[in-house]
Amino acid sequence: MSFQGIEEAYNRIAKVVNKTPVITSRTLNLLVKANIFFKCENFQRVGAFKFRGAYNALCLLSDRQKKMGVITHSSGNHAQAVALAASLWGINATIVMPKGAPINKINATKSYGAQVVFCDNTLEARIKTTEDLIKKHKAVLIHPYDNENIINGQGTAAYELIKEMGVLDVVIAPLGGGGLLSGTALASKGLHSNTKVIGVEPILADDALKSLKAGYIIPSTYPDTIADGLRTSLCERTFNIIRKYVDDVITVSEIEIIEAMKFLWERMKIIVEPSGAVPLAAILSKKVSVENEKVGVILSGGNVDVEPFFQLLEKKS
Amino acid sequence: MSFQGIEEAYNRIAKVVNKTPVITSRTLNLLVKANIFFKCENFQRVGAFKFRGAYNALCLLSDRQKKMGVITHSSGNHAQAVALAASLWGINATIVMPKGAPINKINATKSYGAQVVFCDNTLEARIKTTEDLIKKHKAVLIHPYDNENIINGQGTAAYELIKEMGVLDVVIAPLGGGGLLSGTALASKGLHSNTKVIGVEPILADDALKSLKAGYIIPSTYPDTIADGLRTSLCERTFNIIRKYVDDVITVSEIEIIEAMKFLWERMKIIVEPSGAVPLAAILSKKVSVENEKVGVILSGGNVDVEPFFQLLEKKS
Repeated sequence: MSFQGIEEAYNRIAKVVNKTPVITSRTLNLLVKANIFFKCENFQRVGAFKFRGAYNALCLLSDRQKKMGVITHSSGNHAQAVALAASLWGINATIVMPKGAPINKINATKSYGAQVVFCDNTLEARIKTTEDLIKKHKAVLIHPYDNENIINGQGTAAYELIKEMGVLDVVIAPLGGGGLLSGTALASKGLHSNTKVIGVEPILADDALKSLKAGYIIPSTYPDTIADGLRTSLCERTFNIIRKYVDDVITVSEIEIIEAMKFLWERMKIIVEPSGAVPLAAILSKKVSVENEKVGVILSGGNVDVEPFFQLLEKKS
Repeated sequence: MSFQGIEEAYNRIAKVVNKTPVITSRTLNLLVKANIFFKCENFQRVGAFKFRGAYNALCLLSDRQKKMGVITHSSGNHAQAVALAASLWGINATIVMPKGAPINKINATKSYGAQVVFCDNTLEARIKTTEDLIKKHKAVLIHPYDNENIINGQGTAAYELIKEMGVLDVVIAPLGGGGLLSGTALASKGLHSNTKVIGVEPILADDALKSLKAGYIIPSTYPDTIADGLRTSLCERTFNIIRKYVDDVITVSEIEIIEAMKFLWERMKIIVEPSGAVPLAAILSKKVSVENEKVGVILSGGNVDVEPFFQLLEKKS
């Protein structure tokens, strides 16, 4: 994997992905004495950076593979990303989703024309169901992060941010399976080798910190964090990139995540999902020091179920 | 009042107000077959366009007036706007707020260093308390919309939007006391006289529609709409501008307002308050026809109490 892969991915997908806005907050900058630039991937198509990777991966399939169709398992943003990317390419997509996935994500995935196959709520059931389907139908697996083309696509968010804002002292990204952080690190270090790259994960899903300390992968066992996008664990591919290119991994509590999310909603007026608020949680809790620095933050996505809020509102009105 | 006043206001305040982003939605554009550009004043300082007018008005006070200090009555965004503008000028500000105003708005107003004086929850009590204070302290009243400099300031949002996006077929703005719509109409017609200007108000606060039909002002009596920023009624000044420059006034129901707000939150990932969602309500309900048109929408603000949502979230986590 290399920086060149990200630059090529960017040129490949730039016309189809949204060039997402970069947003700042006077209040926050005064509060933490830094210049923080938020790359708003919550404004990306399907509401998350995942579309960058999925679209890049699908661009690179051979004609034969495109005819075979694609398959993936996901309860969240990757499902929608693959579904939309496949529909743009006119490719058949099968998405294995746990029965318990939120109804709005199931509906969104179906709305892009993907076939949704349900399975039990365990990771094992997802993998088993997906493998069985692959054996039967020979569809091409699009793994959410253990895939070079996916990682290159995800890296284009940081690439776009740095191309727009110039040299950054630090770039901070959420850390789950490590696809976004790997791409972010390759892009950031590739553009300016002195830029520090930091990954942030929930304490309740701190497999990366543990794995880095141990020197081998220790998957999360019960990653019951509110940051549902970060419950996945590293794979060898992302582990190796993160070991090599990421300067620091920091963990944050559930309360810190909620406080950061609230700041983004209340003060900055943007809907960000818990996973996307994790880097700001590290900043607000001063677990990462950013004073006097020019900081890039990848706001990974904004897919939150706002239904309960509107139910309250309708009751009141 | 004239277009020149808005251009001058823009040059006066451009360095202090936020140049707010313009956001689009592929989904929405496909849905209504139009090109809609949202001017995101929810990203303005204090979370609403009101800062534009307040800052412009305070710029134009004489030194003697600045020493006297300013006063206004408001339960909402104008209170915060005057408080912040006054603090930037180092002017004393007194804000008369009803006892029942939301605690977050009271705290925000105080946080800018304004003195908050509480009164009973009626409009009469607000006016009486303000007049009494003016008699005692000789402070300068900054009316939320019956003020030429305020209207010119509010018009800079549309001015900035059109300068960035080029000629628009239609510009749509929320309509309460008429300050924003008056400024929007002066700016839009001043830049391109063929641009259509439409105001949208809640059916539950439809004083403008009634007044325009009658030919004289008929204030709202019990404007119990969820769009709390639009409960005010026209004054002679705004009535006359709207009569002259606004092409159409449309009304929307409470359910249509909530649906539009939900679209902005769920699909576009931005926090917009009910008053700011009113123009989109008119578009989504097809009460205004925008097919094949290039449309500007003023998203007036994003000050919503999100606390109930986060209370639900904390319980779950």
